[in-house]
Amino acid sequence: MDNRHPASWVNGEPASEVLISDRGLAYGDGVFETIRVQAGAPTLFDLHCKRLCSGMAVLGIPFDLEAFKNEVSDFLQTQNLKEGVLKAIVTRGTGGRGYNPQGCDRPCRILSFHSLPVYPGNPAIRGVRLHQCNTRLGDNAFAGLKHLNRLENVMARSEWQGTDCLEGLLLGMDDRLVEGTMSNLFLVSGKTLRTPCLRKSGVKGVCRDLIMGQARQWGFHVETGDYHLKDLAGADEVFVCNSVNGVWPVIACGCLHWSVGSVTRTVRGRVQEVLNA
Amino acid sequence: MDNRHPASWVNGEPASEVLISDRGLAYGDGVFETIRVQAGAPTLFDLHCKRLCSGMAVLGIPFDLEAFKNEVSDFLQTQNLKEGVLKAIVTRGTGGRGYNPQGCDRPCRILSFHSLPVYPGNPAIRGVRLHQCNTRLGDNAFAGLKHLNRLENVMARSEWQGTDCLEGLLLGMDDRLVEGTMSNLFLVSGKTLRTPCLRKSGVKGVCRDLIMGQARQWGFHVETGDYHLKDLAGADEVFVCNSVNGVWPVIACGCLHWSVGSVTRTVRGRVQEVLNA
Repeated sequence: MDNRHPASWVNGEPASEVLISDRGLAYGDGVFETIRVQAGAPTLFDLHCKRLCSGMAVLGIPFDLEAFKNEVSDFLQTQNLKEGVLKAIVTRGTGGRGYNPQGCDRPCRILSFHSLPVYPGNPAIRGVRLHQCNTRLGDNAFAGLKHLNRLENVMARSEWQGTDCLEGLLLGMDDRLVEGTMSNLFLVSGKTLRTPCLRKSGVKGVCRDLIMGQARQWGFHVETGDYHLKDLAGADEVFVCNSVNGVWPVIACGCLHWSVGSVTRTVRGRVQEVLNA
Repeated sequence: MDNRHPASWVNGEPASEVLISDRGLAYGDGVFETIRVQAGAPTLFDLHCKRLCSGMAVLGIPFDLEAFKNEVSDFLQTQNLKEGVLKAIVTRGTGGRGYNPQGCDRPCRILSFHSLPVYPGNPAIRGVRLHQCNTRLGDNAFAGLKHLNRLENVMARSEWQGTDCLEGLLLGMDDRLVEGTMSNLFLVSGKTLRTPCLRKSGVKGVCRDLIMGQARQWGFHVETGDYHLKDLAGADEVFVCNSVNGVWPVIACGCLHWSVGSVTRTVRGRVQEVLNA
């Protein structure tokens, strides 16, 4: 798989371009999913599909989930794509100039395949340092969704380079903890996993969903709420997670330090079992 | 000019598609301008270029303004495009999967030409009714810029159809007046033109800039600040403006009503002179 020229389909046909009139480009009018593919199958696919459908519903974009699932399956099988990252974008499709989406009822589906990202220093085992981003996440009407309006994430991620920090911590404008630039955040206190509620900003990650749904079975209790830097400072352990990289223990953020703890190791292992299943 | 297949260039060449790996599509990582073309020339072009450059600077996208100006000129001249709307999108260009913009230093320029929009009922003379949108604009780090993250505008504009209202009024989450879905808002009190300051959200429109810059010469005083529905209710006159349609008097918003007043008529005329120059 040559990552410079990834396999890609647009609306079910091999293609690497979309119309410049596509509303995904014009306005970020659409959503996306970044899905880990293992042994030729999309992992956590039901959760990804659930979030995709929520997004389509909120944006009022007609969406045929069964057709999408079949298309993903065909895309992976016909090209024999076994291990990597499937990026699926669904936009509202093309439309005239102007914000009004009326009459735009043929969504555009874009699938592309990429190699698994490689990070130095074995972050899942050794943990990562977080850069505390200056860019703040604004409250917005579409909190939770993985829509295409991601300029905040881009600008936050542009704040640091190099490999000392592999992820950044994003706060809301009111200093609330929200998430990482590409992951969700959990604070561990005893057997309790605390994660920001994301009612007002942030992306409700699929790996976060998995953890929240399974935590009780794994022997933990989950709380969501509004947390702040003092809660981060007081946490026994901290980790970030996403559906491509799984769980990364957090070992530092600014002057704060944590060890890779047993709760994080357990959650990491359980998530890894699912991603490698 | 067939508006279904508008004239378009991508990076200086006739084209109607962009790569699916373009960060404009992936993240809304770019800006745009919507420019009225009159007698073959872009109107208010210096103000459009100024805003475009501000956006590029904030997003850290390298941008050659002189080359852009030449390209716009060539685009209009070689195709003999005389009257209509030029839409210019500039994105950060293509990049790998992931938010980090490092290494993406070849911006993508997309020019397309469209007919002037046509609205029923002569809104510039008779005025328009505003729909008060339920969608609220969140405060964000990129207020003022005309970036490609415009989902709020799309969803606000999707709240009504039909021609009873031709524009929608957008409030911030704290009930501040912000703007229209595609225009800026002015409240008139005596000889004073008040417009929301847009420090936290909204787009600093080019027509708003023109009015703010010229108001004193036209015999008016401009104030910017945080205004609310009670200020709207107390205004002598209300108007909205953008660089394509000029000034539209506002005659109603919900149960509030105004006449088309003399200040609005004067500003409308002055703006029209510039747009028709």
